[in-house]
Amino acid sequence: MAGQYEQKLAQLGITLDPVPTPVANYVPYAITGNLVFVAGQVCRSGGKVTHKGKLGGELKIEDGKAAARVCATNIIAVVKLATGGDLDRVVRCVSVRGFVSSVATFFDQPTVINGASDLFVEVFGDAGRHSRTAIGVAALPADCAVEVDAVFEIR
Amino acid sequence: MAGQYEQKLAQLGITLDPVPTPVANYVPYAITGNLVFVAGQVCRSGGKVTHKGKLGGELKIEDGKAAARVCATNIIAVVKLATGGDLDRVVRCVSVRGFVSSVATFFDQPTVINGASDLFVEVFGDAGRHSRTAIGVAALPADCAVEVDAVFEIR
Amino acid sequence: MAGQYEQKLAQLGITLDPVPTPVANYVPYAITGNLVFVAGQVCRSGGKVTHKGKLGGELKIEDGKAAARVCATNIIAVVKLATGGDLDRVVRCVSVRGFVSSVATFFDQPTVINGASDLFVEVFGDAGRHSRTAIGVAALPADCAVEVDAVFEIR
Repeated sequence: MAGQYEQKLAQLGITLDPVPTPVANYVPYAITGNLVFVAGQVCRSGGKVTHKGKLGGELKIEDGKAAARVCATNIIAVVKLATGGDLDRVVRCVSVRGFVSSVATFFDQPTVINGASDLFVEVFGDAGRHSRTAIGVAALPADCAVEVDAVFEIR
Repeated sequence: MAGQYEQKLAQLGITLDPVPTPVANYVPYAITGNLVFVAGQVCRSGGKVTHKGKLGGELKIEDGKAAARVCATNIIAVVKLATGGDLDRVVRCVSVRGFVSSVATFFDQPTVINGASDLFVEVFGDAGRHSRTAIGVAALPADCAVEVDAVFEIR
Repeated sequence: MAGQYEQKLAQLGITLDPVPTPVANYVPYAITGNLVFVAGQVCRSGGKVTHKGKLGGELKIEDGKAAARVCATNIIAVVKLATGGDLDRVVRCVSVRGFVSSVATFFDQPTVINGASDLFVEVFGDAGRHSRTAIGVAALPADCAVEVDAVFEIR
């Protein structure tokens, strides 16, 4: 039987992509004690970047939010891998850092990263509430609009 | 009786703002084990941004240092909340990341973030010494000059 | 007798610089439990910045990779200090964050940060594989091309 968080994902109509194997000398996650450090996830789905460009430039705030949601979905896929497929082992989402590709005059990074924060709470409820840092960066890999990394506590 | 770190804050003439409740699905801090992950704090005091703009642009380095000190003050306010009001439960400040809104030709992020590091050591003494990363970013929320986040160990 | 990781460094022809004492109120590393939080290390060797400028600007990707390798070398020097000189106490490299000074149109931060990731795996083998975040930032201290910080688990 699917766990409570898997059921929540199903209700939300979210399918997790398989986690791609990094093509370099790093790994999607590292576990130390009961903490999972999740590698930075960009807005890529089905092998394609979903939102390219910069906030304050060609992208609107709703594009950014949607991009952040894709990043968060990819983080959940990594956490599922880290828990051996059992998301119910998640104790809580501890920390989220959201990096928004921004022109120098774009100042609404928090609203963009809400796209990630909202998904974590939709799926994990109060256990999805996290400390968070949102900043605007000069450029991201593959011209992605958003990158997010996270630390989760698991049992 | 006020604890040692509260006394130090009083000696420095520092009053901590109440920690605002985030208006989104995140929280000011998350505790895992004996670590407190503090959400990114910007230079906002009394509900107002104290220093807007970019280093290397309209802001001078002393503005940046002052902004970083405001961020650090807000971090201490969050840590006080995380310790149930008893700052003497702080074992040490473990890690600080300082994000400085910078034009492309501003390269003195360390001096800016000293404004935060100095406050932590003024208040917590040797327990305030931390590992640190200082970087220049394209833009920060609400056009803030500086944002700082931190990890503290508590007992 | 030199430990296994020291031998590997010797085989690679890598000499570790002495870790400079920070000239401010922070420290090169902080240990909490069995985690070492390593302060951000820039591409500085023998007291000099090895690679100045921005990727996508005056610097080529191979410059960036070389810069990231210098940063990683400095991180290993800090970890050696943190382990009292015995690198064999390293359990694993948990987390790496790579900050690449980038013009707004440079999107290959991952290849740059491979310069750091590759060194960690060359020295520590599978224990060097880490979760990773690579982002492009507006500017770095002293106009360095790359800055990297890390979390290691030690015994």
